[in-house]
Amino acid sequence: MIDDSIRPQLGIIGGLGPLASADFYFKLTRMTDALRDNEHVPVVILSVPQLPDRTEAILAGHDGPLAPLTAAVSTLNALGVACIAMPCNTAHHWYDKLAANSQAEIIHIGDAVVAEIRRGLERGRVANLATRGTLASGFYQDRISAAGFDLCLPQDREFQERVDNAIALVKAGSIGEAAAETEQALHLAQLAGADAALLGCTELSVVAASLGDTNGLIVIDSNAALARASLTRLGFSVQEARGLPTVPRLRGNGRSTWRAAQRAS
Amino acid sequence: MIDDSIRPQLGIIGGLGPLASADFYFKLTRMTDALRDNEHVPVVILSVPQLPDRTEAILAGHDGPLAPLTAAVSTLNALGVACIAMPCNTAHHWYDKLAANSQAEIIHIGDAVVAEIRRGLERGRVANLATRGTLASGFYQDRISAAGFDLCLPQDREFQERVDNAIALVKAGSIGEAAAETEQALHLAQLAGADAALLGCTELSVVAASLGDTNGLIVIDSNAALARASLTRLGFSVQEARGLPTVPRLRGNGRSTWRAAQRAS
Repeated sequence: MIDDSIRPQLGIIGGLGPLASADFYFKLTRMTDALRDNEHVPVVILSVPQLPDRTEAILAGHDGPLAPLTAAVSTLNALGVACIAMPCNTAHHWYDKLAANSQAEIIHIGDAVVAEIRRGLERGRVANLATRGTLASGFYQDRISAAGFDLCLPQDREFQERVDNAIALVKAGSIGEAAAETEQALHLAQLAGADAALLGCTELSVVAASLGDTNGLIVIDSNAALARASLTRLGFSVQEARGLPTVPRLRGNGRSTWRAAQRAS
Repeated sequence: MIDDSIRPQLGIIGGLGPLASADFYFKLTRMTDALRDNEHVPVVILSVPQLPDRTEAILAGHDGPLAPLTAAVSTLNALGVACIAMPCNTAHHWYDKLAANSQAEIIHIGDAVVAEIRRGLERGRVANLATRGTLASGFYQDRISAAGFDLCLPQDREFQERVDNAIALVKAGSIGEAAAETEQALHLAQLAGADAALLGCTELSVVAASLGDTNGLIVIDSNAALARASLTRLGFSVQEARGLPTVPRLRGNGRSTWRAAQRAS
């Protein structure tokens, strides 16, 4: 169904949320060791923000997002991709069922992240800034423990509240306020003994390059990890130390947008 | 061929170049007046960086890019999109032939840009920072004149050389150096009497948010114009004054990458 001249190698299930996908596409491109257009990986991004909320489904114990995710996997396979990436951690709750119905390999973001943690840390305690859905799903806890790291679980309720706020703020477009909430969560993780903190929700990857000094805490970006894994899997060289996209902090209008986001959610 | 639950409304022909497409997707998302994922437009981006060089084809008088562009239009139509956007100015040389073979409306970037110029300027002289292919194609000159603006054509050879350098530098990933070259071209445009300058190549849109003070010269971003036109056409509200993506200028390593890009081109 697709002409060979435009066949994509990587399929991306995007829109979960859209800014997180744009961040992934930006990082995939920036991290490719290329000087000209045709040295980049051909991709297709299916950005489907209308999908039912993933965390809500996991916490309520239903599989609402599975059917449209399966449809997305099927469409990407029909377009002839070799691999699929999902720059949404929470959607990986349905990974096994999706992978079972895909001819193209689906690169698991959890495996990409564990490889990324190993690049920065030999052993130690890792905190996870993730949705309540991802935490309830448990795939990160399993992988982090199996890789020989200790999980750091801050007991302070404020930690998860800051994480939830930051994610909602990115979805509402308030990047500056989201970065401030993320910095507070990182601080609480460090107080709880973390050596490294995983931005285990791709909404938080959007603010990764905008974070201030993290006081020695190693911060792992799940979108960057997935981009590296995707490029490596497809045989593209990865370029390090290039500026990653950021969004200027806008002073003054963040708080009101945050309140609007709170009302809307 | 696609399930209704994930049907995209906007099809994007991307990869021309990839960073310009990522910038377009970022701006489309940032400019959408939305607080939650499902308030965003569902899109599909077919990123095909392997397409033959557009400027080279136009200057040599051949239609090499037309067949793969037609294939991309056909694939996006098969996916059921209502509209198509091409965040590549030069590819619009083949607009008429592509539009004639597309059920979905293709939004012309030139029309989007003229509307954007009108938002900032009533009358005056407009310079165009574009590829030699776009300039040879002539669709901007026609539209800008028809809209009642005067074309400003800097005669200094350095102007087009700076523009060419900036575009190649973005493709090579050297954003800081590209911004510096773009600033020099803008300065030459102003010296030549321009009231406004069009970033008429979407590679230059990538550095739009990184430009320094333009001394009163109005700068029009063709990617932002196309994003606004796409959202408006599909009935989505446009949000103003949100931070757009930028890439930190990396001091020290830009020049060597530039030299490498010169060798490669």
